[in-house]
Amino acid sequence: MNALPITFIGAGNVGTHLARRFHDTGFRVVQVFSRDKSKAEALAGSIGADAVDQLSGIVAHTGLYILAVRDDAIAEVGRQLADVGIRDGLFAHTSGATPASVLQPYFGRFGIFYPLQTFSPQRTPDFLDIPICIQASVPEDESLLKTIACAVGKQAVVMEERQRIALHVAAVFVNNFSNYLYQRGQHILEKEELSFDLLLPLIRETAEKVRHLPPNAAQTGPAVRGDKKTIARHLEYLQETPDDAALYETMTRLIVNAAKKK
Amino acid sequence: MNALPITFIGAGNVGTHLARRFHDTGFRVVQVFSRDKSKAEALAGSIGADAVDQLSGIVAHTGLYILAVRDDAIAEVGRQLADVGIRDGLFAHTSGATPASVLQPYFGRFGIFYPLQTFSPQRTPDFLDIPICIQASVPEDESLLKTIACAVGKQAVVMEERQRIALHVAAVFVNNFSNYLYQRGQHILEKEELSFDLLLPLIRETAEKVRHLPPNAAQTGPAVRGDKKTIARHLEYLQETPDDAALYETMTRLIVNAAKKK
Repeated sequence: MNALPITFIGAGNVGTHLARRFHDTGFRVVQVFSRDKSKAEALAGSIGADAVDQLSGIVAHTGLYILAVRDDAIAEVGRQLADVGIRDGLFAHTSGATPASVLQPYFGRFGIFYPLQTFSPQRTPDFLDIPICIQASVPEDESLLKTIACAVGKQAVVMEERQRIALHVAAVFVNNFSNYLYQRGQHILEKEELSFDLLLPLIRETAEKVRHLPPNAAQTGPAVRGDKKTIARHLEYLQETPDDAALYETMTRLIVNAAKKK
Repeated sequence: MNALPITFIGAGNVGTHLARRFHDTGFRVVQVFSRDKSKAEALAGSIGADAVDQLSGIVAHTGLYILAVRDDAIAEVGRQLADVGIRDGLFAHTSGATPASVLQPYFGRFGIFYPLQTFSPQRTPDFLDIPICIQASVPEDESLLKTIACAVGKQAVVMEERQRIALHVAAVFVNNFSNYLYQRGQHILEKEELSFDLLLPLIRETAEKVRHLPPNAAQTGPAVRGDKKTIARHLEYLQETPDDAALYETMTRLIVNAAKKK
């Protein structure tokens, strides 16, 4: 299986980390494509692959093509690949929110290889901790992607379209939105000349706690306690930043309602 | 200093974890008060202290009294302590959002000893990681509380009223609100018969990332990318839960605006 030729289309965050991981676990990445030549070369160079910046430079094979491009570019890249004669092989995109079916017009074998993690250029993720969500148009390819996912990640999770979109939405809640809350925390502390570092133990404990307690049992703070005096003090503090005050009120109302339903 | 007699008023989450930590680091907790006798006894018994369930049972000394009670009960407990003749010594409450001055009518020496962390009965926090925010009505007590904070926690941070309230607001954003987002993530996954465990690596990485990157640099996802198609798909998925959809729209708008300001 490790002899299976793999081509990476896209050398952004996901493509880079994933291609490196494939390489590090013994897979053979033959080519890396990016319209940005320097990006293709940087990634390809680090994993012994060839860099290409034209889709016509991609060599046809019947292995695996990983489409790690922007969600809204997947269908178009699929079309262009088919146009230049790259049609055989298995084509998998890495998006949680995009249906597999966007690849259907162009390829007989297509699917999804979506690693559930947040990727940044500056951080190497721990793939041994990452679940990889799988979907494939034919059963043999589902098996193939599962085996590959188990080799590079923590586990392969085969799921339906709707489940994967739900998971992606949930990921946005716990990652994108939480990270925005960290931004606000930083902003508040900066305004008061306090270090953001003060919040780091709390941020870590908040994330660790839900490994051991369901999040509704882990909920603390003035909203769940119904401590109106503290809430009023907080809103008074936030009056100079109306967006923060509005968000505070919304979240407080939602936490109060969630506690009532418990 | 470790011979300083310490009385704990309150045996809830904060009181329990803090009193145990005082005991474990060699301090002498002499009494634990709680109106709930079983709570007072459980905590006192575990740290070699006496349990009392009447304020009149508290023995007067000139050491430290830690008021670890609900924010809205601090002033009233102060009044009642003074009424039963407990007036000398240093009285410190553990609330981030309550002014120190609520204790001023009753005591000559008062202050704040606020450990910045989320406490739950089921989890023993790592005090070596916890900053403790300090304030005192007289300089000698500020020094005393600082020394104690450094002995039981990671660091003592002396700060003004407004700074502490700001820090408490920021804590609500990064903890209470993030944890609510975890609740929603769990709800979404449960609905689709997926395990909440799938989100744990993402939750952890989100929290760890901001130890190394400023939160605005760590922001990923459809909002910051301006990926309208994915956002539309997510909102379509969320249409059955209008509160989630409204929160999604609010957070998305805020992330887009924050990215513009960068």
